[in-house]
Amino acid sequence: MITFTAKEKSIADRIKGLKQASGSHSPNKGTMLREIPELHIKVDACFLSNPYANELFLKRLKKDIRSPKIFKDIIESYPSQNRAIAKPLAKHLGVPPENLFIGNGAIEVIQAVMHRLVKGKLLVTLPTFSSYYEFAAPGTEVIYNYLKKENNFLWDVENFIKTAREKGANSVIIINPNNPDGGYIPKAGIKRICDELSDLDNIIIDESFVHFPTESAAGEIPSAAKLVATHQNVIVIKSMSKDFGIAGVRAGYGVMNKAKAAELLRNGFLWNSSGLAEYFFRLYTEKDFSRSYEKIRRNYIKVTQGFIKTLGNITGLKTYPSQANFALIELLDGTRAEDAVLKLLISKGIHVRDCGDKRGLSGEFIRVASRTKKENKLIVSAFKDLLSHHA
Amino acid sequence: MITFTAKEKSIADRIKGLKQASGSHSPNKGTMLREIPELHIKVDACFLSNPYANELFLKRLKKDIRSPKIFKDIIESYPSQNRAIAKPLAKHLGVPPENLFIGNGAIEVIQAVMHRLVKGKLLVTLPTFSSYYEFAAPGTEVIYNYLKKENNFLWDVENFIKTAREKGANSVIIINPNNPDGGYIPKAGIKRICDELSDLDNIIIDESFVHFPTESAAGEIPSAAKLVATHQNVIVIKSMSKDFGIAGVRAGYGVMNKAKAAELLRNGFLWNSSGLAEYFFRLYTEKDFSRSYEKIRRNYIKVTQGFIKTLGNITGLKTYPSQANFALIELLDGTRAEDAVLKLLISKGIHVRDCGDKRGLSGEFIRVASRTKKENKLIVSAFKDLLSHHA
Repeated sequence: MITFTAKEKSIADRIKGLKQASGSHSPNKGTMLREIPELHIKVDACFLSNPYANELFLKRLKKDIRSPKIFKDIIESYPSQNRAIAKPLAKHLGVPPENLFIGNGAIEVIQAVMHRLVKGKLLVTLPTFSSYYEFAAPGTEVIYNYLKKENNFLWDVENFIKTAREKGANSVIIINPNNPDGGYIPKAGIKRICDELSDLDNIIIDESFVHFPTESAAGEIPSAAKLVATHQNVIVIKSMSKDFGIAGVRAGYGVMNKAKAAELLRNGFLWNSSGLAEYFFRLYTEKDFSRSYEKIRRNYIKVTQGFIKTLGNITGLKTYPSQANFALIELLDGTRAEDAVLKLLISKGIHVRDCGDKRGLSGEFIRVASRTKKENKLIVSAFKDLLSHHA
Repeated sequence: MITFTAKEKSIADRIKGLKQASGSHSPNKGTMLREIPELHIKVDACFLSNPYANELFLKRLKKDIRSPKIFKDIIESYPSQNRAIAKPLAKHLGVPPENLFIGNGAIEVIQAVMHRLVKGKLLVTLPTFSSYYEFAAPGTEVIYNYLKKENNFLWDVENFIKTAREKGANSVIIINPNNPDGGYIPKAGIKRICDELSDLDNIIIDESFVHFPTESAAGEIPSAAKLVATHQNVIVIKSMSKDFGIAGVRAGYGVMNKAKAAELLRNGFLWNSSGLAEYFFRLYTEKDFSRSYEKIRRNYIKVTQGFIKTLGNITGLKTYPSQANFALIELLDGTRAEDAVLKLLISKGIHVRDCGDKRGLSGEFIRVASRTKKENKLIVSAFKDLLSHHA
């Protein structure tokens, strides 16, 4: 059992209070550090992002905003309208701009789709990102599919299709790779689902972690976006926060058939991207920048998979297979996940995500993000230390 | 009549094309300059903002982001949730935080209120900011009240109340000061409307320009926000873009009764403020910053009213009374507003707003923003020059 000193216990209680106040999501880091000045976060492995790409982006941004013109454009000017920001991104993704809806973060796309396009029965697969059931509009009936622990939370495509049919789903949601476990459906599996469920209202595919599967370290990012051309009910949702560590910028998008995109834009979503988000999208689609990012992305996949393998060798925990930039681990030695997370944070400054509030997980689960090589080493040794002392 | 050279005409045609493509709003400046490189905007008097406050904000922001910690917080971290950002702002405004809804710009607040809280008949007063009828949800019936040119577009409070009753409005919208004319209802008039229409579903008061009336140069900003405590149906909407020239940051808020704010937040609007917007709200409510801003605000009101008076003395145009940071002018010498706006932009780099697309305005109307003293002089002499040559 993990023990806390009196001082650690007092800090732990305050962290729990903040967590409670922020619902199903982790309290933001700024709020946490402001409210609990004793905390020092050395490695933020709660936050899911590619730190190398973040460095690339920040370096360029810092350089660019030295130009008064660019700085002015970002801060002062009204951002371009949705369709104008969509233009270069559409070209980059290889889809028509009329299929794009640019969101103030993927969460705005999720909200818009859930509130305006989803009706009837919505099939959500647990465990999942909680907004997919929390944002269901009044009148939507959320029904569930379950990833099985004994199957390592891997997707069973045929079983998923069968469940959707048996339960009479009107819309389904797939996060690929899934959050919080990193389970992944290869391109062929996604194609099979879309072919089989082509009569549904919506097949929502959240690809926020699609830059990280090993399948994509060798070639193209395995996005389903182009399926929208042939499968009218597919909606792809994408956050850019994970790829670049830019959660504060709020940049995301959705790819969907033209009629749905037009319906969302018909009487709303004017100026919903900030100047910084517009700057980001322009940069992201620039040839040179995109080439540099591609190298970094592939290297990060290698770092991540090495890290997940090393985590898997630690005694006292099980690491589930992941194709995302994080791993779901289960403590098997009787340690409570909540205690482990608090202890790591307070005594070592290592911030990981307790999954105690995640529906569909039964056991002591923690989600650990992959950071830089150096940070990942710190995470590994912290877990080793914790489990060997407290087992 | 205004004449154009062949080169001017070709530029004018491209500007018209861009304007058409951006609907009821001006194309953003970046898009315009990117698409028409021959353009040089010397004075942007289409954009409604206090340039002095903009300078104050930018200076501080530039200094702050030299700190890697602040820069990281703005770009990388997930922004705080709606309620956390509301806390310091609520204190600053003197209202309980539960009455606040923080928006990704006022436009998001407008959209949320129009789509989720407004039902039945909605009374909109023309001329107005077009989103107030364009964003009406399907099923809402928009009905109109008209400000009269022969009454200088001034509000007639008693007539407004009478119109709301006679037409059976369920909700009403008041922009105060109004856009595009700057007509203003003093605090007592707003109070009277709220007392008389206390049984309506919503009294929406858009106060995006409330930092600029002369009434507020002497004392407190004449906001109606505190009325929410006594009048359960009042919803105050506020953009911060006009006060600080930060349209790219997307910062706005709504003040409304707790049940309505909670309804909006119930299943949506997670992380809808960017890191930069959160930074802005914290700064805005800081004592020292707020004191510096207050001085600048009062001085800008004087500059603005001086500018409006000078515009009023130009032969060939009429300047309507305004309590905002812009003036509506009407060309009386036969010059077409569209031609005047294009000529000023192309030949002098002075960008003002043609109001030809504004419903409820019959005549040749242009909206001119007040800028710095120096820029305002350039605007005045450009108009004098234009009208004396082409009358």
